[in-house]
Amino acid sequence: MRRPVPADFASPPSARRRRAWEEADRAARPTRLGRLRARLVEAGVDAYFGLRREEIRYLTGVNLGDGEEKMAGHSGRFLVSGEAVVVLADSRYTLQARREAPDARVEAVTYDLPARWAELCAAIGARRVAVPAADISHALWGELAAAAPGVELVPSGTWVDQDRAVKEPAEVERIAAACAVADRALAALLPEIRPGVTEAALAWRLETLMREGGAEALAFDVAALAGPQAALPHGSPGERRVRAGQVLLFDFGAQVAGYRSDMTRTLFVGEPRPRDLAVHELVARAQAASIAYLEAGIAPNGRAVDAAARDVISAAGHGGHFGHGTGHGIGLATHEAPSLSRVASEAPLPSPTVFSVEPGVYLEGRTGVRIEDLVFFDITARRVERLTRFPREVLVVG
Amino acid sequence: MRRPVPADFASPPSARRRRAWEEADRAARPTRLGRLRARLVEAGVDAYFGLRREEIRYLTGVNLGDGEEKMAGHSGRFLVSGEAVVVLADSRYTLQARREAPDARVEAVTYDLPARWAELCAAIGARRVAVPAADISHALWGELAAAAPGVELVPSGTWVDQDRAVKEPAEVERIAAACAVADRALAALLPEIRPGVTEAALAWRLETLMREGGAEALAFDVAALAGPQAALPHGSPGERRVRAGQVLLFDFGAQVAGYRSDMTRTLFVGEPRPRDLAVHELVARAQAASIAYLEAGIAPNGRAVDAAARDVISAAGHGGHFGHGTGHGIGLATHEAPSLSRVASEAPLPSPTVFSVEPGVYLEGRTGVRIEDLVFFDITARRVERLTRFPREVLVVG
Repeated sequence: MRRPVPADFASPPSARRRRAWEEADRAARPTRLGRLRARLVEAGVDAYFGLRREEIRYLTGVNLGDGEEKMAGHSGRFLVSGEAVVVLADSRYTLQARREAPDARVEAVTYDLPARWAELCAAIGARRVAVPAADISHALWGELAAAAPGVELVPSGTWVDQDRAVKEPAEVERIAAACAVADRALAALLPEIRPGVTEAALAWRLETLMREGGAEALAFDVAALAGPQAALPHGSPGERRVRAGQVLLFDFGAQVAGYRSDMTRTLFVGEPRPRDLAVHELVARAQAASIAYLEAGIAPNGRAVDAAARDVISAAGHGGHFGHGTGHGIGLATHEAPSLSRVASEAPLPSPTVFSVEPGVYLEGRTGVRIEDLVFFDITARRVERLTRFPREVLVVG
Repeated sequence: MRRPVPADFASPPSARRRRAWEEADRAARPTRLGRLRARLVEAGVDAYFGLRREEIRYLTGVNLGDGEEKMAGHSGRFLVSGEAVVVLADSRYTLQARREAPDARVEAVTYDLPARWAELCAAIGARRVAVPAADISHALWGELAAAAPGVELVPSGTWVDQDRAVKEPAEVERIAAACAVADRALAALLPEIRPGVTEAALAWRLETLMREGGAEALAFDVAALAGPQAALPHGSPGERRVRAGQVLLFDFGAQVAGYRSDMTRTLFVGEPRPRDLAVHELVARAQAASIAYLEAGIAPNGRAVDAAARDVISAAGHGGHFGHGTGHGIGLATHEAPSLSRVASEAPLPSPTVFSVEPGVYLEGRTGVRIEDLVFFDITARRVERLTRFPREVLVVG
């Protein structure tokens, strides 16, 4: 196979394209809020209290970094009623919130959310407030309930997760742009992979190539795992040196204009071992089986797409070496709905949506192979398209 | 002032020193578990269920990256009883958990924690289980309670946070090492700061200098904010170009062997404006007042240390321009106990401990100044020592 080079993949987005995406978000926000408001009516509640950074950005525009919510207190958390959008912000965040969420009312709230809760709800006429029970701590739920007995808290389920699983065109474009940044970075890294280089050095180089190649952040820490380390599906790169005859697994992703990519390639350093080639071939076939299933299916569900890949691996006797699910949705978060796994929903997949397809086989103490692509899926348009463009064939480096 | 250079600060830790820290953790773990077990006895509960990544590492040794817990499912979560330590891990994490927590029993748990809960508790003889209510979601609390009516869940408060606030010598050494990595990085950046360079480029260079200078990760995203942007205490660096006559605020920190630093310096690009110099002088005086209070106090508390800085700023008429607290503890997390603020506890500060002292003055649309150092505080040894060594004097660059 011809070795991929960065120019094989799309260039990082221009400033003009980034501005167009911001405009698209602004234009889409009323529709997004409209979907949530329809759910409020259906559930018979007056308002929704959102806490997760992805929902904050999706529905209000306020942009918190990953992990920043741990230090932001209540800043960014928001209430949506039939009429109003109210964003909470302490003094560190008020200017930012006003700028990023110009259509919302920004309320100064520091430590005292329970003390303010009754008044905040009264101001928007909310007596029954839906709260995503998976996003709020048990402690805060209890404090809010105790502080305002007149406001009923109603567990909301995963409403916004379900809405976010269906992707707008400008969201898919950004995920594709994040894929291209990652594709280019790995292509640029290939000539630098040599026996003797450490996993940690390769991981940092790959990160640098993404960050200098259009990513404002990583989607998650880069995994660069050589030989037996590749058997740890979520291992961390270390000071181990890459050796000839080993596999070299890279699992990595970029963030572009808020949206993320996620890809895995398992390369071969020097002459591949027949055992590793056989595992690679098996995993590639399993991945292809899931994609073929998506292409063929009338209304595929996440459990069936998982089974398509898993059956191939099980038939080869490696069912016990593929412990994780076949895929997950991606967007503002690295892992989001829909899920593709043995316990995933048997309801049809949302559409249009984007998810990973990433079967793997892990042989403890010996080797591991995973191949992961992001796939755009649109049942109406009958489209199944890999957004990850880096070749999946056996690739020998070093 | 002579411009600082990297060699002014301690070198990154050697591999030998890193191994010594790992050993120290291993040796300290029984003591840490002993403190938690004493709390179990005192509270009349049989076990503790921990969920936060800092607690996972502190008490079991399992090392999850920041944000990784969002993708790890239940992996890393743990039960501690009087006799046992049980770490949960799905198939992606079992090998890692066994290696990093050799003294724990690793239990394979994937999606099915509620289904397994009764059995897991019974296996360690736990009928009353303390759970930190601020760390568990309202949804999971409800699922566990419903799944095993025979197991009583008891909100535990912030036991391990309180224990972690008191730092062991090897923890302080790592925080100091992270401070030195950050000090060196800023010193190395100084010659590269010129009018015309963007905030984002400076932030990335500073990140690169830390990551190539001994940091395995950042403590948080670098803030590099010029001129009026510095009035946003938690602003993000953008494509704005630094101009002569502006202040330039850097808020950043490194992670070394799991422990973190956090520092802020507000530099002057070209000839400082008298207004900005006056604000800088005021903030420096406020910071010095908190430090002096710590040095003088018999048993200082977080509210009084905050007041010491705040009184200086209020006396100058800027009380309304200093909205956030004066400081926060730091260690495995960037923000942890103790807190130094207007609403902080009036109980004596824990000791020995490490926290930031970081007053600021923010003039919306005009300028902002913050000066932040980490301080080691030991009441018994009567020691108050700045771990951040980068000079705090007015520093003109560009």
